[in-house]
Amino acid sequence: MNPLNPSFAVEVARSFALQPVMKLIGARLSLVEAGVVEITLPYRDDLSQQNGYVHAGIVTTIADSASGYAAYSLMPAGSSVLSVEFKVNLLRPARGVSFVARGEVIKPGRTLSVVRADVSGVDVNGDQALVATMLSTMFCLRNQE
Amino acid sequence: MNPLNPSFAVEVARSFALQPVMKLIGARLSLVEAGVVEITLPYRDDLSQQNGYVHAGIVTTIADSASGYAAYSLMPAGSSVLSVEFKVNLLRPARGVSFVARGEVIKPGRTLSVVRADVSGVDVNGDQALVATMLSTMFCLRNQE
Amino acid sequence: MNPLNPSFAVEVARSFALQPVMKLIGARLSLVEAGVVEITLPYRDDLSQQNGYVHAGIVTTIADSASGYAAYSLMPAGSSVLSVEFKVNLLRPARGVSFVARGEVIKPGRTLSVVRADVSGVDVNGDQALVATMLSTMFCLRNQE
Amino acid sequence: MNPLNPSFAVEVARSFALQPVMKLIGARLSLVEAGVVEITLPYRDDLSQQNGYVHAGIVTTIADSASGYAAYSLMPAGSSVLSVEFKVNLLRPARGVSFVARGEVIKPGRTLSVVRADVSGVDVNGDQALVATMLSTMFCLRNQE
Repeated sequence: MNPLNPSFAVEVARSFALQPVMKLIGARLSLVEAGVVEITLPYRDDLSQQNGYVHAGIVTTIADSASGYAAYSLMPAGSSVLSVEFKVNLLRPARGVSFVARGEVIKPGRTLSVVRADVSGVDVNGDQALVATMLSTMFCLRNQE
Repeated sequence: MNPLNPSFAVEVARSFALQPVMKLIGARLSLVEAGVVEITLPYRDDLSQQNGYVHAGIVTTIADSASGYAAYSLMPAGSSVLSVEFKVNLLRPARGVSFVARGEVIKPGRTLSVVRADVSGVDVNGDQALVATMLSTMFCLRNQE
Repeated sequence: MNPLNPSFAVEVARSFALQPVMKLIGARLSLVEAGVVEITLPYRDDLSQQNGYVHAGIVTTIADSASGYAAYSLMPAGSSVLSVEFKVNLLRPARGVSFVARGEVIKPGRTLSVVRADVSGVDVNGDQALVATMLSTMFCLRNQE
Repeated sequence: MNPLNPSFAVEVARSFALQPVMKLIGARLSLVEAGVVEITLPYRDDLSQQNGYVHAGIVTTIADSASGYAAYSLMPAGSSVLSVEFKVNLLRPARGVSFVARGEVIKPGRTLSVVRADVSGVDVNGDQALVATMLSTMFCLRNQE
């Protein structure tokens, strides 16, 4: 994937730091490459649903941001990224000591980009198990539009 | 819609109260009928993304719970509900003084139920605008299975 | 919904007539209003899967075209419409003497429109049962772009 | 992936041969492995929409069948497979001399399986380009249920 903005990694980190919800849930940016972004979320009891697993909406929160920033990393300088839509399949209960959402652009585009994201739960031994997969569409809002 | 469990409203409220993530984000159950559940979320800065709108993942969190409980309200006593998958279209930036997610069962089923949810932003005058719509599949886990 | 192109009904019919696949499966345009389009498909054995029900892909074919033309009916003259993505929930086996796909625009937009479509099976008495529901995103390609 | 039914390849071929719609559109089964199925579709004018590309619904038809049979290949003898839902992102116009839909099970399950499918267009030189990707849920209907 060929980045149009040489400062994409700085731009992704800057935008991520401006998302208050990431602080609320305790997520951090753990990888930024051209077309690929990872977000890591340590488990916390207050992120869970009635069975003690992380709520599907919180799993979606990190998957959506990883996907949006993966798309953003390939957009020209001065762009903004918006989520158009996403679909999530929940594969296993979201248990683990931490979770990693990895977004990868499948098809970059001038206006629309299609991104896949996988969310894995990591256990105490560092073993990963896939808990959800997302397929999404991201919109590039250009500066002068 | 015909509820199989006469105590469905009590059961939905009990389960909702067991979701720590709902306390974290400040959401409350605002309507429970057979096949229809609403969840209300007041705006807070710490729920927002980089532009000051509520993050799509938080919008999804209340839509998913409203959908899951709408399905659960029609399940037999002793069941549990699991989200299989959902798809969300984001229609407008999620701005408002509060948000209402309304889940309605389209097709109840013994094992799988299909649910639609709309999330609206409410402004200072009480006017609503649709910000997202979700289409989801919910799984009924029966007691003895 | 406010049509931007006063000739939208003629344009939808003209474009529909140019889709060879509609002839192949025997579908016809049965309603065109601003933001709402219906396509009707009589049952045929050669549209079915291994159990004698109409294949989910054929159900999708009429739902996608009804959705695309519903969006197209609200676009300015000289536009083209492209399907960005769709999600289909299959609610019941697709049985009936005919099927009606009804697409309705939920949210029209300059570039992207969001459309819902329901597909119903019609039995010998004219009674309808919902067999599938679609939620989709349509792209408006303008003349000069 | 571990097949539960040693005759899975014969069973997939038998079921595929019973789908009249596959004959109508000219699709054939081109690969059957445990958890992976491919279907090939030569281009024909009568499968196209108004621009001469294969209709998204026909692309979906082969992607859905490839996905369903990929899931079916891992199910116990005597099962049936039903599509619960699918989501398709259309990445490029569906042009090519032929199309290959490849379904791969991401997560097999006792009742529900999650499958990803990619559809590629093949040009006269044999080069492939991804035209669509599907993420779906398949249901296993067991003999005695």
